[in-house]
Amino acid sequence: MDFRERAQAVRLLILDVDGVLTDGRVWVGPDGQEWVAFNRRDGEGIPRVRQCGVEVAFVTGESPPTPAERRAEKLRVRLFPGVKDKADWLEAIVREYSVGRLRPLALAEVAYMGDDEADAGAMALVGFSIAPADAHLSARQVAHWVTAKRGGRGAVREVCDLLCEARAAG
Amino acid sequence: MDFRERAQAVRLLILDVDGVLTDGRVWVGPDGQEWVAFNRRDGEGIPRVRQCGVEVAFVTGESPPTPAERRAEKLRVRLFPGVKDKADWLEAIVREYSVGRLRPLALAEVAYMGDDEADAGAMALVGFSIAPADAHLSARQVAHWVTAKRGGRGAVREVCDLLCEARAAG
Amino acid sequence: MDFRERAQAVRLLILDVDGVLTDGRVWVGPDGQEWVAFNRRDGEGIPRVRQCGVEVAFVTGESPPTPAERRAEKLRVRLFPGVKDKADWLEAIVREYSVGRLRPLALAEVAYMGDDEADAGAMALVGFSIAPADAHLSARQVAHWVTAKRGGRGAVREVCDLLCEARAAG
Amino acid sequence: MDFRERAQAVRLLILDVDGVLTDGRVWVGPDGQEWVAFNRRDGEGIPRVRQCGVEVAFVTGESPPTPAERRAEKLRVRLFPGVKDKADWLEAIVREYSVGRLRPLALAEVAYMGDDEADAGAMALVGFSIAPADAHLSARQVAHWVTAKRGGRGAVREVCDLLCEARAAG
Repeated sequence: MDFRERAQAVRLLILDVDGVLTDGRVWVGPDGQEWVAFNRRDGEGIPRVRQCGVEVAFVTGESPPTPAERRAEKLRVRLFPGVKDKADWLEAIVREYSVGRLRPLALAEVAYMGDDEADAGAMALVGFSIAPADAHLSARQVAHWVTAKRGGRGAVREVCDLLCEARAAG
Repeated sequence: MDFRERAQAVRLLILDVDGVLTDGRVWVGPDGQEWVAFNRRDGEGIPRVRQCGVEVAFVTGESPPTPAERRAEKLRVRLFPGVKDKADWLEAIVREYSVGRLRPLALAEVAYMGDDEADAGAMALVGFSIAPADAHLSARQVAHWVTAKRGGRGAVREVCDLLCEARAAG
Repeated sequence: MDFRERAQAVRLLILDVDGVLTDGRVWVGPDGQEWVAFNRRDGEGIPRVRQCGVEVAFVTGESPPTPAERRAEKLRVRLFPGVKDKADWLEAIVREYSVGRLRPLALAEVAYMGDDEADAGAMALVGFSIAPADAHLSARQVAHWVTAKRGGRGAVREVCDLLCEARAAG
Repeated sequence: MDFRERAQAVRLLILDVDGVLTDGRVWVGPDGQEWVAFNRRDGEGIPRVRQCGVEVAFVTGESPPTPAERRAEKLRVRLFPGVKDKADWLEAIVREYSVGRLRPLALAEVAYMGDDEADAGAMALVGFSIAPADAHLSARQVAHWVTAKRGGRGAVREVCDLLCEARAAG
């Protein structure tokens, strides 16, 4: 199946945080505070892809307090923190997103974007798996699509644009 | 019309902040504070282009408090924050800059530099529209000129240098 | 001897901090606080290489308080700070890691990853010396292996992956 | 005259801060605090070039408090802040460095490394003028030597290494 067909079916876009919404770097000070760098052009993509009918969620293995929480609040995206086994979590969340809907959510309707081995299990389960250009080999190997842009440098916007185009063409 | 002719006519240079004066990244800490990275070589360009007879303004969709406010204060540039519809705002601001002047300001005398879809409407209205090398396609498509340098990495200085050269040659 | 053979023998991996776990940059504020940028994909490599039977230690010439302390705590790695002569320190640490073990640790079983002249002496002593792609010439010249990735941008993960692969193949 | 001959004569190395010891970027927070990114490999070069018999000074147009002050303190380098006219300042400083010395300091024995138009005047006066690879054209045009590395990314270390090699060869 072509990646555009996969994109057309997507109703939920799940984005890993570090390495996807960021470039994987973490700025650390002498008191241990952690800062990461998000991207405003990615941020512009979130409301756009929602207008195209795709829900968005962030997932991270990191536990609060994290910069991701504040980013998620600002963009009004639901964040799932502290997720150690992303494949297990994915199956639970698909069930949860199906409750009270006319049509239950299927794994084939989920896009998952990840950048590392910890994402590979979840990526193998979904209808459309995506890795940024600079992802670890383990994530690129299981991805249906690898973006031209790197994590934190517009890779998420590229996905949002693709999903909207696919729906418009569908 | 050649982009140098367009540059020659410019009396007001409007700069979008994120992605133009910065590379679009935003550093976020666990308390939600936002930091962005400006460029001193761009900063050197602002007084230079003013000496060449071009006024400068910053515009952003972000609401205070923002790093852009402090940057604007330091460079003594007027900042228009929280602007959601930049095309609407542009028309109002051109009227305002015309009040009490010998010659009213025309849209043909305005340069607008933007990097994303939210800038495209305003870019389509002005005499000289500019995008940094790494702008979103939607901004590059409507730009009369795309700089060689990227946003936050000297793209603004490149514009300031061009405007001064064009005036010197004119 | 091939670098894969060298990698197979490794029981202890010593990582210099600045330029190896970071890209060598240090962000400084007006109060003199120092921040550095680590990499989550490198961070993922640390527990993985330990699962492959390799111990990990960090070493730095910088004195506490440093961001490296907090990073080491988070990754549960032992950090040796304020080390001025790394070759001297290396010989002492190899003796210490040998105490109470069935088989004493040999220098041939140590991998040392460094990026600058201050590391070159220690690198000349170990069984497997590694430099990131963007290391200073003095470190690259004595390295048995130079990673494809740069310091702070995945070079450490590349080493962790190599050590695990070498052990699996061994 | 060959740049190596120029390098051999150097007794004082003057380094501009922004764009030379940094990449010209300035991180700004909502309270207006300014952070910049220095480089540890550049930092390693400072004591080395002093051991080779070259004095080092930093100069900046920025006024205290600046990150440059704290960097200069840490590296025990004299910083001249708030210097608006660098050519004027250069002539005064050469006189000052000549006081009480067996042999007065000559402009031909000064190296000046700058990255922008504000440095060009001083660069035209010294025996050895240097610009980083990514300097503004106005600085590269008057430089006797342009480093392979960019400002804040090892350009200063490259200069320190060159000065020591030139003295060793001299």
